[in-house]
Amino acid sequence: MPLLVIGTLAYDTVETVHDKRDEALGGSAMYFSVAAAPFARPHLVAVVGEDFQDEHLADLTRRGVDTAGVEVAPGKTFRWGGRYEADWNTRHTTFTDLNVFEHFDPKVPANYRDARFVFLANAHPTIQLKGLQQVEGPSFCVADTMNLWIDIARDELGELLRHVDGLILNDEEARMLTGESNLIRAAQQVMGLGPRYVILKKGEHGAFLMSEDVHFALPSYPVTEVVDPTGAGDSFAGGFMGAVARAGNTDPATLRRAMLYGTVTASYCVQGFSIEDLGRRGMNDFDSRFDELLSIVTV
Amino acid sequence: MPLLVIGTLAYDTVETVHDKRDEALGGSAMYFSVAAAPFARPHLVAVVGEDFQDEHLADLTRRGVDTAGVEVAPGKTFRWGGRYEADWNTRHTTFTDLNVFEHFDPKVPANYRDARFVFLANAHPTIQLKGLQQVEGPSFCVADTMNLWIDIARDELGELLRHVDGLILNDEEARMLTGESNLIRAAQQVMGLGPRYVILKKGEHGAFLMSEDVHFALPSYPVTEVVDPTGAGDSFAGGFMGAVARAGNTDPATLRRAMLYGTVTASYCVQGFSIEDLGRRGMNDFDSRFDELLSIVTV
Repeated sequence: MPLLVIGTLAYDTVETVHDKRDEALGGSAMYFSVAAAPFARPHLVAVVGEDFQDEHLADLTRRGVDTAGVEVAPGKTFRWGGRYEADWNTRHTTFTDLNVFEHFDPKVPANYRDARFVFLANAHPTIQLKGLQQVEGPSFCVADTMNLWIDIARDELGELLRHVDGLILNDEEARMLTGESNLIRAAQQVMGLGPRYVILKKGEHGAFLMSEDVHFALPSYPVTEVVDPTGAGDSFAGGFMGAVARAGNTDPATLRRAMLYGTVTASYCVQGFSIEDLGRRGMNDFDSRFDELLSIVTV
Repeated sequence: MPLLVIGTLAYDTVETVHDKRDEALGGSAMYFSVAAAPFARPHLVAVVGEDFQDEHLADLTRRGVDTAGVEVAPGKTFRWGGRYEADWNTRHTTFTDLNVFEHFDPKVPANYRDARFVFLANAHPTIQLKGLQQVEGPSFCVADTMNLWIDIARDELGELLRHVDGLILNDEEARMLTGESNLIRAAQQVMGLGPRYVILKKGEHGAFLMSEDVHFALPSYPVTEVVDPTGAGDSFAGGFMGAVARAGNTDPATLRRAMLYGTVTASYCVQGFSIEDLGRRGMNDFDSRFDELLSIVTV
């Protein structure tokens, strides 16, 4: 099943205590698409500047991503810079140059509008809603968000939440959105805001999914060498939504397995800068690590 | 199968942001025994002062704990005081009065010496080893420890680790003991120090067990109302060792199920001060929450 993703393509400059990358491929939709492509064909809606290299779009196409919805706008591509402390938990944003993303006006191509599975990557909730409204009643739409929008666009986020089936967020965002420090209660409160499914990510501590009929919790895959955590959340979303789209349904069993696949794609992501590790992986790798994770969590 | 535990009985004074208890039942062996008793008969070795109330020993006996190894020494019972911040992760020790525990010299009664399952609760590693050496080749001996001994008695702890089958420790202790921030690598390094089994607890983020033939990871039980985290680790150990002793073996399947039971007993512990909640529970409660946790983690 095709899978629509609306998000960013970017060039990232990332520094860790061990190494550094300048102008490496990044952006939510980049990580999402690369993680999801082995599962299901991603239909990508994004905007890049005139400086976005053709070879980078060609690479996405080779991976099976449909890039017809990528608009090239006058100006420069979104750029982001970040630096991690040794413990990985502290990230400093060194710069954010929105560039063409500042006026992003998502245009969903006509042949994408019947997408049944939709992922709205992190963006201003009004932009996310504008993208969603161009899709004809998807069966499963999941949105991401961030602390910035919870802070400055809470009403618009509230409106978005009344239109999506699921929200994927991390522990800090869940606490900020609900004012509730206990994560189980926070997830329950998020469901009260609209989404029938809440996927709450806790980084190295795993993730859980909550809905009326599923409560599933999972530790993270035991990565022994983290290289760069950038994109872990979007890679998780890519593996999760990819697995759901491939199954073509949102049965509890599908969602549980999708949580494992999301954990697996995120684990490959953090093993390299940018998409250096994740981008070398295919369904064989994903299945092999899925089986390993399954053996670790099976009672 | 009887289960030998060597540890402390204490009176604790605990303060949270919501409530407070003065001189409540506490101590590692108290939590351990109350958690383990529904699974297997705990044989308890500990020391109390003359002020330890008879009714508190009688209560342990009623629970099925064999208290013949509890020595009453001249002086006062061990007392500890602690205060928790609102986030539960920050604990301030307000006082530690070792009292009779300062000169604890564990004496394992003759009829306990063939114990196959042994838990050495947190104490100076030389004391722990002295206790262990009175047991005739137990099949499964697990020790706990704490940052204090890692700091001031590292050599003695190293000696102990060469004699135990398993070590149970939390994330902070694992990092301190090994100097390794990645917890998987830390656990592997602990195995290099002697123990064939490492049980690493991460509080609200769950726990994992690692050995040569088992790697099992588990999220915590989703407690929505934490009242007092004191004793969670010892309650975990009690449920874990109790389940192992009841099964009478350390097969991988037994150890995995024991990790769930440890998680369950710890979850009841934190729902009340002291043993107020845990102490009201029996095997029916443990099994019921085991099934619930199993449904949450089953893919």
